[in-house]
Amino acid sequence: MNLALIGFGTVGQGFAQLLRDKAADARFRSLDAHITVVVTRSRGALALESGLDSGLLLDAMAAGGLHVFPDLPGLRRDVTALDAVTLPSVDVVLDVTPSNLQNGHPSVDLGMAALAAGKHLVLANKGALVHGFERLNAAARASGRKLLYEATVMAGTPALRLAMQALAGCTLLEARGIVNGTTNYMLTQMQAGLPYAEALAEAQRLGYAEPDPTADVDGWDAASKAVILGAALFGRQFALNAMEVSGISHLTPGDIAAATAAGECWKLIARVTADGAWVRPTRIPLTHPLAGVAGPTNALTLTTDVLGDVTIIGKGAGGLQTGFGLLSDLLDIARSR
Amino acid sequence: MNLALIGFGTVGQGFAQLLRDKAADARFRSLDAHITVVVTRSRGALALESGLDSGLLLDAMAAGGLHVFPDLPGLRRDVTALDAVTLPSVDVVLDVTPSNLQNGHPSVDLGMAALAAGKHLVLANKGALVHGFERLNAAARASGRKLLYEATVMAGTPALRLAMQALAGCTLLEARGIVNGTTNYMLTQMQAGLPYAEALAEAQRLGYAEPDPTADVDGWDAASKAVILGAALFGRQFALNAMEVSGISHLTPGDIAAATAAGECWKLIARVTADGAWVRPTRIPLTHPLAGVAGPTNALTLTTDVLGDVTIIGKGAGGLQTGFGLLSDLLDIARSR
Repeated sequence: MNLALIGFGTVGQGFAQLLRDKAADARFRSLDAHITVVVTRSRGALALESGLDSGLLLDAMAAGGLHVFPDLPGLRRDVTALDAVTLPSVDVVLDVTPSNLQNGHPSVDLGMAALAAGKHLVLANKGALVHGFERLNAAARASGRKLLYEATVMAGTPALRLAMQALAGCTLLEARGIVNGTTNYMLTQMQAGLPYAEALAEAQRLGYAEPDPTADVDGWDAASKAVILGAALFGRQFALNAMEVSGISHLTPGDIAAATAAGECWKLIARVTADGAWVRPTRIPLTHPLAGVAGPTNALTLTTDVLGDVTIIGKGAGGLQTGFGLLSDLLDIARSR
Repeated sequence: MNLALIGFGTVGQGFAQLLRDKAADARFRSLDAHITVVVTRSRGALALESGLDSGLLLDAMAAGGLHVFPDLPGLRRDVTALDAVTLPSVDVVLDVTPSNLQNGHPSVDLGMAALAAGKHLVLANKGALVHGFERLNAAARASGRKLLYEATVMAGTPALRLAMQALAGCTLLEARGIVNGTTNYMLTQMQAGLPYAEALAEAQRLGYAEPDPTADVDGWDAASKAVILGAALFGRQFALNAMEVSGISHLTPGDIAAATAAGECWKLIARVTADGAWVRPTRIPLTHPLAGVAGPTNALTLTTDVLGDVTIIGKGAGGLQTGFGLLSDLLDIARSR
């Protein structure tokens, strides 16, 4: 299985690290996956039909970029992203570029090109689905290829697998949960007494929040996951800009104190049904299962017809963890071949 | 897919109800499953190669037993359990008899006979696995048939699927959780101030506890699930009678009060690793994710190498819910054919 990686940041490198470290595992040996193309925006590009060694790729990035990767016979350095998704030797395209939640560009177009070229498409990029799910899904069906995106919600914690595979046979009625770890960490800190600005600074210091925290604190990252859950669970494409989205930046110390006094806590909840989705800070009783989900952890509760509520709790971020989501999707592709 | 049901109590009837009510669902239509044999200990037996209508089976049980099932052409009423597991027309044997945790009799022998006759084996019966996992697993491998038992842990909540399928690629290091709903309900009530005897009476009134509550309150039901988790996750057969098993019947009001005063609560925790398993009442902080798992709900935390802790929370009992576990296993068998 020959892989093209579009992007090679934290998630791409986490994935390469897993390929390197899990190479001896029988399951992955049978997967026989090789990175044959890597394209980055500003740190070079590489293509080698016989496969690029994961360890050497990671060494090169640690040393400054793909330009320091050794000159092997057959190596190309002039590949573009569009080359990468259409090269005949590539079986699966993995989009691990940063999510563009504004319009999904250029991931939607690259994904469409990949599927048109007969590649399977595995996404860690949320923007591609938020803006292109219906088109990508239709293209995947038309070409008989897989469109998989476990890594986009709760990183590699198998929330989508739980809903779409393990619960097969149940009718899903609703999904709701904590799908943004940054704001959950901040809310946990704020409930411990930290003011908003200090909780944000702490989250940035720990690498949970971006220098520009807007996407997290204003609820847009959670909303993009709600859109993806709407697509995965209900086959619907909800419009991000038509959704009710409210973040945590307006929560006052008074709001926090009022919840605490009432035996409740604040969580930024995303909720999705077949009819729509919203994201808003919500007060829940301390006895509620989601109340114990603290810090950067994520959780998703799926309401089903037969089993009632089924909740999954796990890490929602991290390069290795998100890379594991990609690897899970590859195992699915291998099983279906 | 022709099914033989050994036993037809709450779980068997829950399963029949799902078959009846989900018959229109595309997924189940493609499963094309028919109950062709039902054998009970004291309420009759039936076999019909063309299939026994689920609705009629349920009606008969509601009216007193299988003897009132209408006399259809080809119907046999003289089948034994051993006939049922070896009839040539049967593809899958489902053992939904009450678990015999003492020695697994007769489920281990019936399961061995079913596998030897080339049937797939689906178990809701815990005793068969507690006392026969290694033999049954070896027989299933030898005959190339499936041995599946999702329904034995957390009813139909897909705890085993999560561990064995959705987390494929992770190395599992430990499983621990709340796998007995009766004692969890009682502990929740005791922490709300009810004495042990009243909590037990309440659990019995609600149907959570058996008239003889020993298996639940002394930890043996949880221990049997720990044995099954050891088998499923680590391929080990731990001996129930060599395991450290401690229940909740010795917990005093003073024990409860001491935990509450320390900001903690009691949970009956089962813990399993590759090296062994135990069940014991454990004090955990109220901020721990398992602390919020109240009443008859179950929860399992799987510690993995890549994803850290992944927790699944859901119902742990109920005829329909346990029946759904059986149905999930049938979908897996169908996928593998």
